[in-house]
Order: sequence, then structure tokens, then C-alpha cells
Amino acid sequence: MGNGMPMPFTPGSDMAGVVEAVGLGTTRFNQGDRVISSFNAGWIDGKLNNNAKNPHYNTIGYAYQGVLAEYVVMSEEWLVKAPQTLTDAEACTLVCAGLTAWFALIERGGLRAGETVLVQGTGGVALFALQIARAMGAEVFITSSSDAKLATAAALGASHCINRKKEDWVEAIHRLTNEQGIDHVVDTVGGRNFADSVRAVASHGRISLIGMMDTHDTSAPGAMLLLKSPTVQGIGVGQRRALGDLVRAVDWIKLKPVTDKSFRFDELPQALEQLDNGAFGKIVINVG
Amino acid sequence: MGNGMPMPFTPGSDMAGVVEAVGLGTTRFNQGDRVISSFNAGWIDGKLNNNAKNPHYNTIGYAYQGVLAEYVVMSEEWLVKAPQTLTDAEACTLVCAGLTAWFALIERGGLRAGETVLVQGTGGVALFALQIARAMGAEVFITSSSDAKLATAAALGASHCINRKKEDWVEAIHRLTNEQGIDHVVDTVGGRNFADSVRAVASHGRISLIGMMDTHDTSAPGAMLLLKSPTVQGIGVGQRRALGDLVRAVDWIKLKPVTDKSFRFDELPQALEQLDNGAFGKIVINVG
Amino acid sequence: MGNGMPMPFTPGSDMAGVVEAVGLGTTRFNQGDRVISSFNAGWIDGKLNNNAKNPHYNTIGYAYQGVLAEYVVMSEEWLVKAPQTLTDAEACTLVCAGLTAWFALIERGGLRAGETVLVQGTGGVALFALQIARAMGAEVFITSSSDAKLATAAALGASHCINRKKEDWVEAIHRLTNEQGIDHVVDTVGGRNFADSVRAVASHGRISLIGMMDTHDTSAPGAMLLLKSPTVQGIGVGQRRALGDLVRAVDWIKLKPVTDKSFRFDELPQALEQLDNGAFGKIVINVG
Amino acid sequence: MGNGMPMPFTPGSDMAGVVEAVGLGTTRFNQGDRVISSFNAGWIDGKLNNNAKNPHYNTIGYAYQGVLAEYVVMSEEWLVKAPQTLTDAEACTLVCAGLTAWFALIERGGLRAGETVLVQGTGGVALFALQIARAMGAEVFITSSSDAKLATAAALGASHCINRKKEDWVEAIHRLTNEQGIDHVVDTVGGRNFADSVRAVASHGRISLIGMMDTHDTSAPGAMLLLKSPTVQGIGVGQRRALGDLVRAVDWIKLKPVTDKSFRFDELPQALEQLDNGAFGKIVINVG
Repeated sequence: MGNGMPMPFTPGSDMAGVVEAVGLGTTRFNQGDRVISSFNAGWIDGKLNNNAKNPHYNTIGYAYQGVLAEYVVMSEEWLVKAPQTLTDAEACTLVCAGLTAWFALIERGGLRAGETVLVQGTGGVALFALQIARAMGAEVFITSSSDAKLATAAALGASHCINRKKEDWVEAIHRLTNEQGIDHVVDTVGGRNFADSVRAVASHGRISLIGMMDTHDTSAPGAMLLLKSPTVQGIGVGQRRALGDLVRAVDWIKLKPVTDKSFRFDELPQALEQLDNGAFGKIVINVG
Repeated sequence: MGNGMPMPFTPGSDMAGVVEAVGLGTTRFNQGDRVISSFNAGWIDGKLNNNAKNPHYNTIGYAYQGVLAEYVVMSEEWLVKAPQTLTDAEACTLVCAGLTAWFALIERGGLRAGETVLVQGTGGVALFALQIARAMGAEVFITSSSDAKLATAAALGASHCINRKKEDWVEAIHRLTNEQGIDHVVDTVGGRNFADSVRAVASHGRISLIGMMDTHDTSAPGAMLLLKSPTVQGIGVGQRRALGDLVRAVDWIKLKPVTDKSFRFDELPQALEQLDNGAFGKIVINVG
Repeated sequence: MGNGMPMPFTPGSDMAGVVEAVGLGTTRFNQGDRVISSFNAGWIDGKLNNNAKNPHYNTIGYAYQGVLAEYVVMSEEWLVKAPQTLTDAEACTLVCAGLTAWFALIERGGLRAGETVLVQGTGGVALFALQIARAMGAEVFITSSSDAKLATAAALGASHCINRKKEDWVEAIHRLTNEQGIDHVVDTVGGRNFADSVRAVASHGRISLIGMMDTHDTSAPGAMLLLKSPTVQGIGVGQRRALGDLVRAVDWIKLKPVTDKSFRFDELPQALEQLDNGAFGKIVINVG
Repeated sequence: MGNGMPMPFTPGSDMAGVVEAVGLGTTRFNQGDRVISSFNAGWIDGKLNNNAKNPHYNTIGYAYQGVLAEYVVMSEEWLVKAPQTLTDAEACTLVCAGLTAWFALIERGGLRAGETVLVQGTGGVALFALQIARAMGAEVFITSSSDAKLATAAALGASHCINRKKEDWVEAIHRLTNEQGIDHVVDTVGGRNFADSVRAVASHGRISLIGMMDTHDTSAPGAMLLLKSPTVQGIGVGQRRALGDLVRAVDWIKLKPVTDKSFRFDELPQALEQLDNGAFGKIVINVG
């Protein structure tokens, strides 16, 4: 997504750290407070005010200088307090992947205990969706092409693990739900996969569109969209207020984000290589 | 949609008439009451209980014997009282087209005065959407390929009429809304048109998917769905409770459904021909 | 509500005017823009962040210096654009009374065409509630002790006018609604009147608590609150975002606020006297 | 609540049992199904259709013959499937107390993980509210006059236990929440206690009015209701659809209802005596 960012450019959107100093008129934080960054800089609450023709993507580490640095300067409006029960390495994973899952399932989805949730794959958002859904008492279905990853997902709370290499996963969903389908489909793949999400969703269920792993247009048969009448909701991370809600929830549901490996600041190339290899959980860089 | 209906089969889903006689234990109606039929037989309130794999379409005149008849027998649960301010010819148009527009904009959409609504074309649902939106104080945009139809739409309350043969209608929307886009897009076309609906919709706006005029899959670029994060809602008419709400509203907003021509019962062939020719407003058959 | 405001103090919360000059970094307005003030200074969107033990009342003209002045300086965050279809004298009435009625009926109430609304009396909020409800296609009931005021209310769109001196108004409501009660009760009286609002409300209806004309505690029989299960909502004006929504709506529903008399700046004592005498509509001071 | 029920009358509203036989045309159940009864007979989904002047109370064991019997005959519409993870003795407790708590917190309240919930006392509804709130990841506060009951409540998941005999419980709430107050107050006392609930609730929080232990009118100072703007919701148990949702949730959150003692059918007098003595958890009669 080349966006003409000015060079030199500091990448990175997800940060946890300590407030070293505050400017004049700061009211939200004091020196020494542990904080995490807000992904959509300046989106505080309510709807995102965006342009309909050429929507901006005003995020930290993209439109604004990022956080892969020992020290950053940013508006106090772009920060929230870190959760008390997480380390910095864990807390920084909430900023994008955690909030996206929370926003889809809770803020927009109003997930209730006893509902069914489908998670596709084991990427960062998918694992948070699995953990949040399980913590809320939902019945979680997950698909993956790896039995090993499914076993780990089961340990994290997934009740139904489907290897999509071994069977048609939509048929498995129909069978496992007695053809009732899934209340909340978290579609982190997109493109042509959306048609399968529509096949899997329950009547009047919800599909959260999050990912663009498949580069084709998002598409599905129109008849199914009318007959089953799902709510389809595009998700673009979330507001600072919702991030604060997530932080509060994390402390009470004792959610421990899944992290893959940690790297030193000077190991950034190895960290990116690990990302390319397919991590299970978030990769953390310790800049300190 | 061949569905193996038993022959002889009576078609027709939309009916207004008078209760001639009631069966034992009837509590909702008395002889002489003016009533209209409910499209989705047996869907009373809340979510539609449907099969996720092979969703049924349990509607009158399709899965059940229809209403193109001088007398019909049906459960009192499938009827609601007719509005007091409409003739039978007008009242019967609420059953499918009227309720679909109401369900999209009001029941699901929560439309508020001052919001923007885009109506595509001048079909039955589109005209109801135009009239309901205008009655609720919305700012209505409409597209058509006919200047004559646009002129009639303007007389019905549309504030912005766009001839999609003469200009790119999405660009017109962007220009007319100062690139803020449309709060409620009523997409009665579907298929590849959905991509244009996504281009036209406001950030965090709503697209109601209603029609299948375009037979291709419903598709749009994934990036726009994430950046603008619209709510996309498949609409399959609505419940009996919502039909009752619409009836009550019709009397208070003095909504007069647009009807095209009326035909005698024995003119059914001509009525169907008129439908094929492209009616403006609903076609009515007087069976009495 | 003596709150230790510093003297000299400028009263007044509702203002319409023109931006004379903008400070460095201003982005929301330009010189020459017509604006109105936001009642709850700093409440932009979402929930009001307030203290549960000693809730503040951070409003303009109370906690902050007010607007009864030829020139005021305030943060651009405390202003919204004025509606294009209203004069300044009309526009300033939206700030408190208009937004309160809008917030109760639309933002919180989700009012739909065809629903019933009860307005109690003919104060500023009550008249806005009447006009907004009627513009949205609701069926409006109003009570007053004056036949003359009821006649004016009828001209503004009220369908059922009840003189509470001549009959028990709750019994009138029961009779007029066929004992179904009222969907949205706008209680601008409070205190012991709340019990009558509960008697009048429909099963699962809504009561918006707005006024404190009766100084007794707000009270009602518990059994009725359980059996009819209304939603009771305290209303404290509303956010800046909702004020922007109202402004947009006003232009599209052509709402013309009811104003009583206008006074010159040096006639303030007479204006306050008129207020004490019981105005019908808002009183305006032209400070220019 | 003497209601002129015909004698002989069978009391009791909460039942779990097995379908012994089904009538012609039954579709929801088969012989042998484990079922529980629905409290509000005939309230299936959506709003309760009730009279505004003299609201009915059409519940089983009150307006209809009850369930304290070895065999009962009732419409299949008045039953839902029992949860798979509960015994009959546990399952029957969901019908009234369980559904009331669920309806207040989840159906109406939309409770989210991380929010604060206040439970007053340790009655049947209160204990369910505590357990449901904790299962959803909420932070639970509870008041009681007994340290022993508070200790048991702590074991059930309450994080903050306040002995209202030893301190002003509202002041304790203010202190423990850093004066932010409580997001969801479950007021099972009513009457004059409502004023304390209003003092305790957070700005824009929610108070569910459930009980009538205090026989005075429900009352609170009007100023607090406006400044804090809580949503106050009368709760009258709930619909059959919500009971089905609760049953599904119970199986997934592994909720085990708290039961006090079980009695044989012929020990009914002792059971009622135990009820009068103040049970902790629900009392069960085994009629089999």
C-alpha cells in the first residue's frame, strides 16, 4: 500500500511502553504510566469520519510515523492505559489484532454466551477471536490446514477443529451445527472465500469481513444473501474507546495473547523472516 | 425458482381483502375486517428460523398456495389489518415491495431524518424506499436511465435525480455529497452493481442488498469494504410484526403507494405483459 | 444550582452567530461560518464521562462562561455549523431545547413513523418533541391546562389534545389508545408526575425523563414498572455529534422552531419577565 | 396477588421434566424430550403485548394452572428443551430466576466483558446475576448483611463483597470504582432502595428494576436521573426465545445453578417453611 510516506520512515503500529515525559496541558497520563498505542490515530469514538471516494487510512506506522523505535512522541489522544495483567510484550498485541477481533465480535457483533463463532485459520486476529469468543462462553469452530495448529487451537478453547485439507469445511459446519450454521463468522480471508462464509453462516447471522488474503473481489451468490439475510460488516480495527474497553476486559477475563517469538531490536530482519515463515501468534520486538 | 409446487397451483403473494368468515378459536380477526397477507408465512417476529445449508423460501404463492383467487383460506397468523387510509388496490402493494423497503430502511436501518438515502431505479421496492425515506425526512438520491421516470421520482420527493446513462452515477454521488457518500444505499440490482454501491456508501454507512437483477455474483473490492466498513444487510422481505408497524406508519405519514395499472381478473395475461414492459409502480388485479 | 461560578459571570448557553476570527490550528471552521454552540462543552460523541458520586454539569453558561455577549471566545470543538434554513434567532433554540427533544426521541428512542408520542405541556422541549415527532410520522398526544395552547399545538401537528384540567389525562390516553398506551412518553415534569407517565406508557414502551418542574422525588409504583417493563431514560441534553445530526435533520424536515418574543440586548430584564410569565416557544435576545 | 384463580388451583411456575406423550400436530418435541417450562405463557419473541391500563400477568401457576404436579398438560409453545449439562433439579431453576437475570444483563443489558455489575443481596435472581456476569467476564460487586453469604458469593466469583450492615454500601461502591460507579445495577429490592441504585450507577449506566422487596414506591431524586442519565429498565422475566438462548448459554459456560435444599412432594410444607427462613439458592421439589 505505497502511500508516499516521507523518508526516513519509522514503521510499526503496535506499541506498549512507559510514558517518559508529558507535555504542557496533558491530562490523560502521567510520567511512568504504562500505555499502548491506538491504531487509528484520532478515531476516538462513534463512527469513523472518512472520505467516501478516496477513504484515508490514517494509522500509526502508515500515514503517521510509527513506533518501531526506542522513543516516540505522540498526542496523548492516541494512547490508552495498558492492561495490568499483561507484560509489555503481550500488551502491544492488543493494538491491532486484538482490537480487530474485539470490535468484530463484541463492539459490532454483541456476542452472547452460547452463540456459535467460526474462526478461519490461525492468524493473529483469528487467535484473538478464538480466545475472546471462548472467554465469552461462545461455542467456537476453527478451520486450518494443519492438524498441529488445530491441536493448539483446541487447547486455547476451540470446540470444533476442522482440517480444511481433509474435508469440505462448509459441509463440516453444516453437519456439526445440525444445519443451523454459524452465528458469527469471522472471515479473515476475504475474496472468493466470502462465498463459503455465506454458505456457513446461520439465518440472520453475522459475517465480519476482516482479511484480504485472497486478492480477488469479495463475492458470493446473491440468492443466499437474500434468503439467509446475514449482516455483513467490514471491519477496520476500531476506535480508541473500544480499545479501552478491550483493555478492561482483558484484565477480567485473564486473556493471555498468544505470542510466537520475541526478538531484539537488532534482530528485526530475522523477525520479518519469521513472519514470512508463518508465525503462530504475534511476533514481538523488544526495542528497549 | 422451480420448487415442485403441487398442481394446480395458485400464484400470487400480495393480497388485500375482507374476512368473509372465521374459524373456531380465531382471535385476531372478525368477519368484515379488512386485511392484507403476510409474505413470509409463519414468520411472526424476531429472526427467521431457517436452514443454513438449504434455506427454505416459505412464502405465500410459492411454497404455499397463493392469493390470485376470489376466495382464499389461510391461518389468521398470516394476516394483518389493512391500513385505514388506503384502498384495497393500494393496500395490497405493501405486502412484499412495501415491507421490503420498510424493513431495509426502518426495521434494520433505523433511518433518521437528515440522513442520505440512495435508491437505484424505479421498481416497486425502489419507489417505496423513496417515499418512506422522504416521509422520514431523509435526503433522497435516485438513479435511472430515464429522464421521464426521474421527473416522476422528483415529484415523489427525490431531491437528487441522476440519469445513469448520461453520467457515472457514483461520481455524481461523490460530487453531490461533497465526497461524504450515502448513509443508506438501497441496492435493488445486486451482482456487479454491488461494487458501485460500495463506492457510493458513506464511511460506516449501510447497504441493503435486495435485488438480483444482475445475475452475476454479488461482488466488490475487499479494500473498500474494510476501509469504509459499511454494514451490508441481505433483506428477504420481513416479519408479520414489521408489516403491522408499516401499516400503522402508512396511516400516519399518509403514504400513497404508486400503482401503475389495474386489471380485471380475466385480464391477467395483459397484466403480466404490462409487467414485462416495465411498469412504473405496482400492477393490481381486481379479482372481485 | 449555585455552583460557585467566578464573578463577573456571563450567563446563557444557547447561541447562534458568525465566526469572526479563528485561531491557529483551527480546522473545523472558517471566518464567516454561521455556527451554534454545543450545550455540554466537550461531550463530543458516545457516553458522557462523568463522576458517579458528584456528577458535574460542565455546560456553557454554567460551569463555563456563557454566551449572552456580543463576542465570545470558545474552542472550535464546542461549536457546530448552523442549519441553512433557519435564521439565527431560530437556530439558537436548537442548542438545548431542540437537542434534548431530539436526543430523547431519536438518538435514544429510535422513534419510527406510526408510533405514539406523548408530550406533556407546551414548554420549549415539549414543543420541539411535538414538531420532531410529527415530522417523523408519529401520532402525537399532548396535554395542557390551556385550550388556547392546545389549539396552537394542534396547528403544529398534535393529533390528540387533552386538557388536563377538564379530565384525567391518563384515562384519556387509555381511552384514545384503546388501552394500548403510549410508545414514547416525553416526561418534562418529573417528580410525582412520573407515576402518571408509567400509567400512560405502553407495554415495553419508553419514558424519557427530562424535567424537574415537580420538586418531589421521581416516583412510581413498582408493580407497574415490572409488569409493563418500560425503558426509563434520564436525558441530559446531548453530544455535539447528535447536535450536528439535528442540524442536518432540521434542514430536511423544514422544522421551524417556535419562538415567542425577541428582545434587544438591553431588554434582558423584560425578557426574563416574559420567561416568568410563561412563554409559548423560545425567547430570543438579539445581542448584535 | 389474589387474582381469582379457579379452585382447585395448582401452584408453581418452574418445571423441568420429560415429555410423556405428544398431541396431534406437535412439531417442537418428541416423547422422551427433556423440557423446562416458559414463565410468561405465550410470550414467544419480541415485545410483550400487554394492556397499558390493567396489564395482565399471564404466567404459569398464576393465570394458568401451574406445575407442582406429577403430570401437566400444556401447549408445546410453552416449553423449551432442557440444557444437557444440568439435572432436572438444576434446570427448573432457569425458568424464572435464571431467565430474569439473563434478560436483565444480556438480552436487555448487552453486558460485555470488563464491565462492572452490582448485585444486591443473595436471592435467586441475584445469584444468577452474579454467576452470569462472572461467566461473561464482568467485575462483580455484591452487597449483603451477612458475612457468611458474602463469603459464598466470593466463592461464586464476586470480586467485591460489601456488608451493608457495616458500611454505607453506596460509598463503598464509589470508593471501589474510583467514583466511576457501576455499569449494570441489578436492583432486586426496589422501592426506596432505587435512590441508592441511582447513586451507585455509572454515568450512562443501566439499572434493571426487578424486585419489590420494599413496598414503597420506586423513587429517586430527579436531578441525579438527569445528570447521570442512566437507562432504567423494568424487567418482567422474559420471552421463550430468550429462555432458549439462556439454555444454550448454560451448556457452554457450564453454569451450575445454586440450589438450597431438595424436598419430596409430600414435604411441600417444609419446603415453604425453608423458603420463609431465607434460602441461599433455589429450593427444589421432586414430584416424581
